[in-house]
Amino acid sequence: MPGKFTFYSENIDDRFIVLDETEARHAIQVLRFQVDDNIEVSNGLGNKYAARIVEIQKRSLKAEIVSCTSYERSRVNLAVGILKNSDRMEWLVEKCTELGCHSIGFLETKNSERSKINLERLHKTAIAAMKQSHGAWIPTIHLVDWRQVLDSSSPLKFIAYCDLEDGISVKNHPHALFDKAGDVLICIGPEGDFTLDEFKLATVQGFSALKLGDHILRAETAAITACAWANWV
Amino acid sequence: MPGKFTFYSENIDDRFIVLDETEARHAIQVLRFQVDDNIEVSNGLGNKYAARIVEIQKRSLKAEIVSCTSYERSRVNLAVGILKNSDRMEWLVEKCTELGCHSIGFLETKNSERSKINLERLHKTAIAAMKQSHGAWIPTIHLVDWRQVLDSSSPLKFIAYCDLEDGISVKNHPHALFDKAGDVLICIGPEGDFTLDEFKLATVQGFSALKLGDHILRAETAAITACAWANWV
Repeated sequence: MPGKFTFYSENIDDRFIVLDETEARHAIQVLRFQVDDNIEVSNGLGNKYAARIVEIQKRSLKAEIVSCTSYERSRVNLAVGILKNSDRMEWLVEKCTELGCHSIGFLETKNSERSKINLERLHKTAIAAMKQSHGAWIPTIHLVDWRQVLDSSSPLKFIAYCDLEDGISVKNHPHALFDKAGDVLICIGPEGDFTLDEFKLATVQGFSALKLGDHILRAETAAITACAWANWV
Repeated sequence: MPGKFTFYSENIDDRFIVLDETEARHAIQVLRFQVDDNIEVSNGLGNKYAARIVEIQKRSLKAEIVSCTSYERSRVNLAVGILKNSDRMEWLVEKCTELGCHSIGFLETKNSERSKINLERLHKTAIAAMKQSHGAWIPTIHLVDWRQVLDSSSPLKFIAYCDLEDGISVKNHPHALFDKAGDVLICIGPEGDFTLDEFKLATVQGFSALKLGDHILRAETAAITACAWANWV
């Protein structure tokens, strides 16, 4: 039987899991799973299933659920300025999925050089990263506008800003930063960061300024760092 | 005068800084710096200089030092199994330079699928990342062997290991982990991780087991996470 591998399926009922064609082909043709082998399947919504393969066809695989374990979702939500560089957006999605992140909203900001992104591609990147890291959650990836971000009801709301001299520094406040229970929303600017007006708008609406250490971090590095911190403090 | 930008030079004496051809061309032709403009230059070894341009030629730029600020180096040293995927190694170097890292040793491990890497290319990636993040330090990037790693005199030595159920979890010990002063050495395995033998060898030599959270992280994500944590706790 092949080694540990986590599959993804949206097609799960009380008793059976069906893998779609791509997943099934991978399981059957690459990993050589057979009937009666045990597999692990995640639904991307917090549940991981242990299941036993009961039927294999060329393009499909059906397994019977043996047990189900539920995992708590991450409290971290990101609102990230749309980046010029789509590779860097994919990396951000991959890494934040690995580390644990509940949602990633891409936001058109003043310094974003475009307004459209390939959400389907980013969603696939997130699925792959969840499988790779044996996770149970796929972050919601969507476009958001400023109104939605500013109206967030998260008890902890931060906006990272590079030119900040007197913000809340993670270096000085590593533990106090994420001290309240509940969701955390962290806004990260695109290349060129938020404008001062955008930053001020957010702080007026109850966002705290966040300085992620002494260096100027690229947008995706800032997002990864925020995820690592917020999940583990 | 162009906005804030950090240049890199190895050619610095008590009074003058000379930028090499690539840096000079960028300063003159792209950023349009002129004589009498002020520039910021890092030597990659902890010093950042404010300097005033005194001479511009087609392929060189000379500036007079106005002031120098010294920055403490990071305490973080990584020993990372050579990765199959060179893009991921470049990302690791870029991100760990941004976050702050004193050295990155690439180690041929049992599961490394090759033994040679392009150190010069990785060094260039580190220089670019230092400039990008307005940093003062370029990490030393080199090949290391197991003997050098095991003989390290760092007061804090860790080896990350995925299959670890009872290791030191960053989740449970976020603050106690890096509580001693001085250098930290963190070993991260390649794709496929360290073998159990390698892991045991390190623990026998005084390395503590390290589990970076609940998920299985890719090697480069583990390295980035370790840097973020060790620098800021």
